[in-house]
Amino acid sequence: MTVIVIAPDSYKGSLSADVVARAIESGIRRVLPHALIRCLPMADGGEGTVDTVLAACAGVIQRAVTADALGGRHQVRFAVIEQDGQPCAVLEVAAVVGLPDAGGDVRQRSSLGVGELLRHCLDLGIRRVMVGLGGSSTNDGGAGILAALGVKLLDIRSRPIAPTLADLERLDRLDFVDLDPRLRECEIVLLADVDNPLCGAHGATAVFGPQKGVAKTDIDLYDRWIGCLATLADTWVGQAISAMPGTGAAGGIGYALRLLGARMESGASVMCGLQGIDRAVAEADWVLTGEGRSDAQTLHGKAPYQVAQRAQAAGKPVTLLSGAVRPADLALLAPHFDGCFSVMPEPMALHQAIAQAEGLVADAAEQLTRLRYGAAPPSAP
Amino acid sequence: MTVIVIAPDSYKGSLSADVVARAIESGIRRVLPHALIRCLPMADGGEGTVDTVLAACAGVIQRAVTADALGGRHQVRFAVIEQDGQPCAVLEVAAVVGLPDAGGDVRQRSSLGVGELLRHCLDLGIRRVMVGLGGSSTNDGGAGILAALGVKLLDIRSRPIAPTLADLERLDRLDFVDLDPRLRECEIVLLADVDNPLCGAHGATAVFGPQKGVAKTDIDLYDRWIGCLATLADTWVGQAISAMPGTGAAGGIGYALRLLGARMESGASVMCGLQGIDRAVAEADWVLTGEGRSDAQTLHGKAPYQVAQRAQAAGKPVTLLSGAVRPADLALLAPHFDGCFSVMPEPMALHQAIAQAEGLVADAAEQLTRLRYGAAPPSAP
Repeated sequence: MTVIVIAPDSYKGSLSADVVARAIESGIRRVLPHALIRCLPMADGGEGTVDTVLAACAGVIQRAVTADALGGRHQVRFAVIEQDGQPCAVLEVAAVVGLPDAGGDVRQRSSLGVGELLRHCLDLGIRRVMVGLGGSSTNDGGAGILAALGVKLLDIRSRPIAPTLADLERLDRLDFVDLDPRLRECEIVLLADVDNPLCGAHGATAVFGPQKGVAKTDIDLYDRWIGCLATLADTWVGQAISAMPGTGAAGGIGYALRLLGARMESGASVMCGLQGIDRAVAEADWVLTGEGRSDAQTLHGKAPYQVAQRAQAAGKPVTLLSGAVRPADLALLAPHFDGCFSVMPEPMALHQAIAQAEGLVADAAEQLTRLRYGAAPPSAP
Repeated sequence: MTVIVIAPDSYKGSLSADVVARAIESGIRRVLPHALIRCLPMADGGEGTVDTVLAACAGVIQRAVTADALGGRHQVRFAVIEQDGQPCAVLEVAAVVGLPDAGGDVRQRSSLGVGELLRHCLDLGIRRVMVGLGGSSTNDGGAGILAALGVKLLDIRSRPIAPTLADLERLDRLDFVDLDPRLRECEIVLLADVDNPLCGAHGATAVFGPQKGVAKTDIDLYDRWIGCLATLADTWVGQAISAMPGTGAAGGIGYALRLLGARMESGASVMCGLQGIDRAVAEADWVLTGEGRSDAQTLHGKAPYQVAQRAQAAGKPVTLLSGAVRPADLALLAPHFDGCFSVMPEPMALHQAIAQAEGLVADAAEQLTRLRYGAAPPSAP
């Protein structure tokens, strides 16, 4: 019996991880109708993390009303799963202050709603939370989260300021006296896929600010404002938290939550654990993974790399099937996979590929299967 | 020892068959540096046939001066190889009246130069000729060839007309009295990859005329003129040659040469014979083939299909690696190959793919090799 494990991330902007996995499965089944195929969709903490976790583990969807990035009220979904007999909430920053929904000016956006959602979990008695950091529209240094959890942001005359990037210009002092004491009993795990620090040339504003609407000429200024917030908050903890890798994730949400005691993990690695990838791979003859676009960044702990590492440790062949594979980075990627493939069948524009992505994935998976399990098994090399 | 046979056609408009084969080899060698790899480039009678034949067989390049499509003089190359102890000339219609070089009006173009080249071979004492029919710019029903070999084309007042499409309007009579008698001793093999008849809805003018500059509104008219030529010539032979498959190849050059006793073969099939594909495939663990763009037409005897048929007869896996694979035709192609792959790594335009084609071919071949000869050999399905 041929056993095949399919563990792709989503093709961002096109297909969810679950749809990618099912498309790959349908392509394989055209060739091997009776194979034992296990679909284990992956996620990295970005959009789709909640659904992927729920597909992997027993759990329920919960709903709450929080602020969106501009302060309007909206309903958001999160998951509650069981871990070691305890409830564990799984939140997505993207669901609360996500980039696709974001309007207005990045300076007016706040991560307040993420803090509200965390507080809501505390109210429910939950003391273990995973927060997927990908896909945020905010760049407030995590000021909104701090405010939602009881930290006062004050100007030079001790008047409260709004927890937005714009108001950080006037920040003079942080008051932690009313910080929610329940946080001390709470285990917060951050699911991230970047390791940027909060400030500087590799910081949140410089690297991710432009895609959220920060003008290039404003980067230094905003970076300084956020730097002031970090100096005040780091002083309170007595540790240079802001220099730690990953604090630049989600416009500084990573920073604020680490300040409050969260620990940071690779979203894809945690997902591998939840999906039981190691156990599945041990029984597999072939492992397939993929993502929307693979490039050198893939090797910085993204889901396909995590899956590949686990497959290789088990001595199992693992093949990458992505929407696109950046040609200039293929030489870096190739040694980690038994073949890196794109679903592209002919010259076409990105929007054309996206429009027919599901069919292209199935077709490509079929062809890979024909090559691997074709007419005569290959002799050993 | 892993033995791999690489037998692609050219990627038309981009890479010659030889360059494609070498690129595939270089990609494979990145994974299997010590494999025994045999490059057997293919051709189908179109542009590149002469060079591919010479790469396959011992032979020499010869040169001759002939008319081009518009009657100017130019030097053309052809090959002379040895077959069964006899010299055999290999000519390309594309080299004499090829479409890329063609200027002027299709009505003024003539296949005269092809007839002249044939006569030149007869003058050299050669009595065996292969004529690759692909890539012509002419649509004269083969009138030029007939004229070059001694047939008189006469109008109603017995004045000679020019052997062009335009003058066929005035054709009234053919006079075969001075037809070169040496043709009777000559074996002519036509290498074609189409099976269209000379006239009608599937004829030369209707199907291939437009790409040579025939206006859609003129198709019926020109088809009738060529039909008159065919009626006269078929009457002379006493057989409806013009209805035979392949007589519509090369704007009727196929017709004229069949009229003069030529037989028609699949160019790709003849090339398989010259390259010794059967013998090579028998020793191979894996066969790779391909072409610029694969679609349903591929299964009508094109080189990749010929190679696949021979590999499958020998029970050997054969994989298609083409510039593009038409998605709508993949379901037709797939059963004939152990995987149909495009070299495309990401969304891009055709001209971008062509500009970097050689590298893309090598990269794709490397990935196929990694999948096929990866970490652990697959268990049998």
